[in-house]
Amino acid sequence: MRLLRVGGKGAERPAVLTDDERLLDLGEFLNGADFTPDFFASGGLDRVRSALAGDPLPELDQDGLRIGPPIARPGKIVCIGLNYRDHAEESGAAVPAEPVVFMKAPNTVVGPFDEVLVPRASEKTDWEVELAIVIGSTCRYLASHEEALAAVAGFTVSNDVSEREFQLERGGQWDKGKSCETFQPLGPWLVTADEVADPQALGLRLWVNGDLKQNGDTKNMIFGVAEIVRYLSQFMVLEPGDVINTGTPAGVALSGLHPYLKEGDVMELEIDGLGRQRQTVGQA
Amino acid sequence: MRLLRVGGKGAERPAVLTDDERLLDLGEFLNGADFTPDFFASGGLDRVRSALAGDPLPELDQDGLRIGPPIARPGKIVCIGLNYRDHAEESGAAVPAEPVVFMKAPNTVVGPFDEVLVPRASEKTDWEVELAIVIGSTCRYLASHEEALAAVAGFTVSNDVSEREFQLERGGQWDKGKSCETFQPLGPWLVTADEVADPQALGLRLWVNGDLKQNGDTKNMIFGVAEIVRYLSQFMVLEPGDVINTGTPAGVALSGLHPYLKEGDVMELEIDGLGRQRQTVGQA
Repeated sequence: MRLLRVGGKGAERPAVLTDDERLLDLGEFLNGADFTPDFFASGGLDRVRSALAGDPLPELDQDGLRIGPPIARPGKIVCIGLNYRDHAEESGAAVPAEPVVFMKAPNTVVGPFDEVLVPRASEKTDWEVELAIVIGSTCRYLASHEEALAAVAGFTVSNDVSEREFQLERGGQWDKGKSCETFQPLGPWLVTADEVADPQALGLRLWVNGDLKQNGDTKNMIFGVAEIVRYLSQFMVLEPGDVINTGTPAGVALSGLHPYLKEGDVMELEIDGLGRQRQTVGQA
Repeated sequence: MRLLRVGGKGAERPAVLTDDERLLDLGEFLNGADFTPDFFASGGLDRVRSALAGDPLPELDQDGLRIGPPIARPGKIVCIGLNYRDHAEESGAAVPAEPVVFMKAPNTVVGPFDEVLVPRASEKTDWEVELAIVIGSTCRYLASHEEALAAVAGFTVSNDVSEREFQLERGGQWDKGKSCETFQPLGPWLVTADEVADPQALGLRLWVNGDLKQNGDTKNMIFGVAEIVRYLSQFMVLEPGDVINTGTPAGVALSGLHPYLKEGDVMELEIDGLGRQRQTVGQA
């Protein structure tokens, strides 16, 4: 299934996009519930599956409809750093021996077509296309990759927007450059795990103003989806609705090969089978 | 006011402790609402103040009643590292030129008397008594210390429990050693900002098994409460209910002077005017 949330900011309705591209409203069926942590924890995906098999759901007119982030605010956003060899190299960093873990504030989430703001006093705002995992069930000291994959609700496209001076030159930890307002576009869809045949065989691409900057493949991740989920569960409890950014391939501005983002720039991102995003850059 | 939440885990009721130590139930008055981000955002503190001035609230029997964390799950927990000169020195770290910022997963919060778990495979679980700020209104690019202090709802005692091997020896960023299950005892009370005459004049102490390990004063913070809130608002949007840990003074096990925590140890923490915590250490 391709799940999404449509409507104005803060007033999104849950919906599902059918294989023949019809947009069906789930708002009434879910009785006002949203794609929240509780939705995933309480078997929400199974309820939606049964809804699609039952009486027809009302169809929504897609014309002019805003697409929001495909999940309501997550409990946490965990990020894996330097998880593609080519990106570690362009960043001047060593290839990590085990996953590098940092966090992004959950209130950074915006929709896939919403504006991304260059923070005030920023000169190094950068892009990062990433495969995002959405967790479907509680993960605590998972013992195997099978358990880890079974806990994944699905996948979505993520732009892990980053301010490199704040992240790397302002003392200490990366989180300072990862949590600025609007720094987490997600979507357009949450594609459920059963429809992603192999999460380690997905092309992912990002363009700035029409120029292809990143062109990677999840097969080149150093630590794959199953290992990331298993590994993280040794250090923290992952919960339904949590988001994990799995790292970005080469081609970011930090490499020194491209200018950083400025007001008016346009980012486009896509991952095979997970859809496409487009953000215009504004100024905070 | 001293606000708190009492009752079983996940079923806490909001309450208030009066100056003469009576515990008054706010559950009915707040109509099922809790000390959530929405509560702070919607003027909840003013509603409680008016409740205390109005008809008598029902009194609760305190005997055997569990005290939970004083706020419902926060949107984020932001932490300031190395914010006391003596702790930076004992950690072998430079005194920071500007605040070091990292994050702790919001699902680490437990009550002030709940068990703290040593993670599996952990040999370096450590304590950190800290003054925690609870944010009362949205903070975005604040211009002054006055604006910052006006945005503080209140203060509480925090134990920023840390696994030092995960934090410092396992590659990359500190968050990996800060977000383990039960690693964020908060409470017993949220003391509203109007009742904390000077947040930079509070003694804070921590004992392990009755031995005083930390004995600091918030006057020795490198960056004070007002500067921390103003500074963070340049990098992220702080929201009502967010928690900020303001750093810990010297005396942690990382110093090499004390053994790390093990099952059966007892931590006790207190901050002048903010009450006292007590946690027994268990094994995950």
